[in-house]
Amino acid sequence: MKRAHLLVVGVYLLASCRAEEGLKFPTYDGKDRVVSLSEKNFKQILKKYDLLCLYYHEPVSSDKVAQKQFQLREVVLELVAQVLEHKNIGFVMVDAKKEAKLAKKLGFDEEGSLYVLKGDRTVEFDGEFAADVLVEFLLDLIEDPVEIINNKLEVQAFERIEDQIKLIGFFKNEDSEYYKAFQEAAEHFQPYIKFFATFDKGVAKRLSLKMNEVDFYEPFMDEPIVIPNRPYTEEELVEFVKEHQRPTLRRLRPEDMFETWEDDLNGIHIVAFAEKSDPDGYEFLEILKQVARDNTDNPDLSILWIDPDDFPLLVAYWEKTFKIDLFKPQIGVVNVTDADSVWMEIPDDDDLPTAEELEDWVEDVLSGKINTEDDDDEDEDDNGNDDGDNDNSDEEDNDDSDDDDDE
Amino acid sequence: MKRAHLLVVGVYLLASCRAEEGLKFPTYDGKDRVVSLSEKNFKQILKKYDLLCLYYHEPVSSDKVAQKQFQLREVVLELVAQVLEHKNIGFVMVDAKKEAKLAKKLGFDEEGSLYVLKGDRTVEFDGEFAADVLVEFLLDLIEDPVEIINNKLEVQAFERIEDQIKLIGFFKNEDSEYYKAFQEAAEHFQPYIKFFATFDKGVAKRLSLKMNEVDFYEPFMDEPIVIPNRPYTEEELVEFVKEHQRPTLRRLRPEDMFETWEDDLNGIHIVAFAEKSDPDGYEFLEILKQVARDNTDNPDLSILWIDPDDFPLLVAYWEKTFKIDLFKPQIGVVNVTDADSVWMEIPDDDDLPTAEELEDWVEDVLSGKINTEDDDDEDEDDNGNDDGDNDNSDEEDNDDSDDDDDE
Repeated sequence: MKRAHLLVVGVYLLASCRAEEGLKFPTYDGKDRVVSLSEKNFKQILKKYDLLCLYYHEPVSSDKVAQKQFQLREVVLELVAQVLEHKNIGFVMVDAKKEAKLAKKLGFDEEGSLYVLKGDRTVEFDGEFAADVLVEFLLDLIEDPVEIINNKLEVQAFERIEDQIKLIGFFKNEDSEYYKAFQEAAEHFQPYIKFFATFDKGVAKRLSLKMNEVDFYEPFMDEPIVIPNRPYTEEELVEFVKEHQRPTLRRLRPEDMFETWEDDLNGIHIVAFAEKSDPDGYEFLEILKQVARDNTDNPDLSILWIDPDDFPLLVAYWEKTFKIDLFKPQIGVVNVTDADSVWMEIPDDDDLPTAEELEDWVEDVLSGKINTEDDDDEDEDDNGNDDGDNDNSDEEDNDDSDDDDDE
Repeated sequence: MKRAHLLVVGVYLLASCRAEEGLKFPTYDGKDRVVSLSEKNFKQILKKYDLLCLYYHEPVSSDKVAQKQFQLREVVLELVAQVLEHKNIGFVMVDAKKEAKLAKKLGFDEEGSLYVLKGDRTVEFDGEFAADVLVEFLLDLIEDPVEIINNKLEVQAFERIEDQIKLIGFFKNEDSEYYKAFQEAAEHFQPYIKFFATFDKGVAKRLSLKMNEVDFYEPFMDEPIVIPNRPYTEEELVEFVKEHQRPTLRRLRPEDMFETWEDDLNGIHIVAFAEKSDPDGYEFLEILKQVARDNTDNPDLSILWIDPDDFPLLVAYWEKTFKIDLFKPQIGVVNVTDADSVWMEIPDDDDLPTAEELEDWVEDVLSGKINTEDDDDEDEDDNGNDDGDNDNSDEEDNDDSDDDDDE
């Protein structure tokens, strides 16, 4: 660990050096908290902590860029370890070559990944490798896997969560064997999917839950799917969630963004950019939700919604890579292997496409009529029959009259 | 600039080194983009950019810690400059000693501050000095100062913004002199306070806006204040906003957290922690809103709501400094000079205080009955008549029966 520290001790973080008491951002204090794992110290370390966070890395090479990357990640981990020092979480590095046997035993297969051991479970972190994202991920992981809903206001809170998958079950009490199965199932998906439960008849009635029933809510859908054949075993619940895990419309989240990006359909993503806090973005998102609700039974459709506010550092990169303006809503198709893309023509953000127009466009994407390859020749030959990369020319020919019923 | 770079080139940022196309976090490329400002190059640089971002710093000292801090900030600025390279924003450093004359001319008075020149306006940034926060701040600053509301869905979006001050005006059209005054006023507060306008009669009717009227919405209040004596000049609008800028309940935001923290009342803040995405936190926030609505006319009351999700890196620091558990809602009084604090006793997060109980507590704080000093002796003498720092013992004696009407 020493070499890395010589270079970067105290350099990270961003740290406001203001003197105000009550708002002090942490700076790395230079103390070594992240240790190298070996077969020798493994058992002892595992016993010591409630949670063990393992960074599984390729052998540190002599390549300078790779070294910097590695040191960077090490400092991020050190800072996270420092910040969470009182939470009984261990942090270790696992060298893929030196500790190949141990890694195999632990089931690690992707170098550069971060794994967390919690009891007999292994959770993979596949999100933005930043201190704040990691801290929040770990804090979520040490909370109870099931959140209890006790009263009307908490039902409201539950109902307001619309941008992620959620499950809720109604059980007799905490000792119910079905509640226990539900808890065990929740642990499989913690912290990525939220599980709620109630023991309150009033709450159950408001949510139309029968005893021992669990409802599954897809993001942005008003009506849940009642999981069939209650009561359920842990395995049945886990299987159901796994089968329904890819929604029609989902929000890209820092904590599992890479996993989501890898979960493409036939090598592409339909990506929609909309800033929810902006009136145009909000409006576009409402239209997207409508499209998702109308097509929730189509297994070939999964739209990825990105709120630029969640990724300020990527906004400029996306604008350059996709040649679009992210001050207004956008929807397009992105090829995940080369980031080639085509985008729907939205001439004016005061005149967004209707749900019907969006559905037609989506259909053209799914049928292959709109795709990322068709315009490539055009770009190179510069035929000049349209003004650039914004759209597939088919689109323009078909949809001349999109001025009418926007409201 | 060179010295700093030798140490930290490429060390910042966090950067995921994944190879997925479409999600590449930026790493600093080592190129110098931030320049030192002097009277010589000032005019030329100012002319070159739409926006000029100036870091006004004390002379770099020989103290190692101060040097590191300075270098850190420099790298953050370099990364921000790199990311926003195509947006025509300039980034400069202003040495407080070397360029004292220039700084005075520019009206800079707080060393360590970041100022942004936009036309003839100077905007001070007093938030978290992190690349993502800064990028978002600057992107917000180059957007139009007024957002136009065109239709029903956008009204919905407008109505959903409840956690910050917002203004909306109804004007004849873009050429209206009153709209222009409104735009000018908006620029005084951009990007901290959102200004909206509509030219649509239907929208105006829905929001009960008369022609040339501007309504001011305090955070979390259902009903706006109609600014009196329309139509208004720019100065009248600016004055009104300045007078009403401190709300009864406000959310701590990364982009102006230090400014907010400095805006204490008699050296204290009433601070409430509530995680909005959590059912208990949501419930507590609803109760807080109730208290705020009931007391909106009390100029001595300003509650600071902190959502721990907005500040993952500060959670552990707050837990240690304030000796509280942030997995559940908390409300307390914090002395801003020494961060000494007392917290309301909330024995069980399934049994949160009612709005009435909270109001009683707030009254005791405002009257000085509950304060951060009373328990200090107790702590030192360790009289042992209560279990720690959680509360003022007065509180415990008075409120034995808080088990009843929570729902």
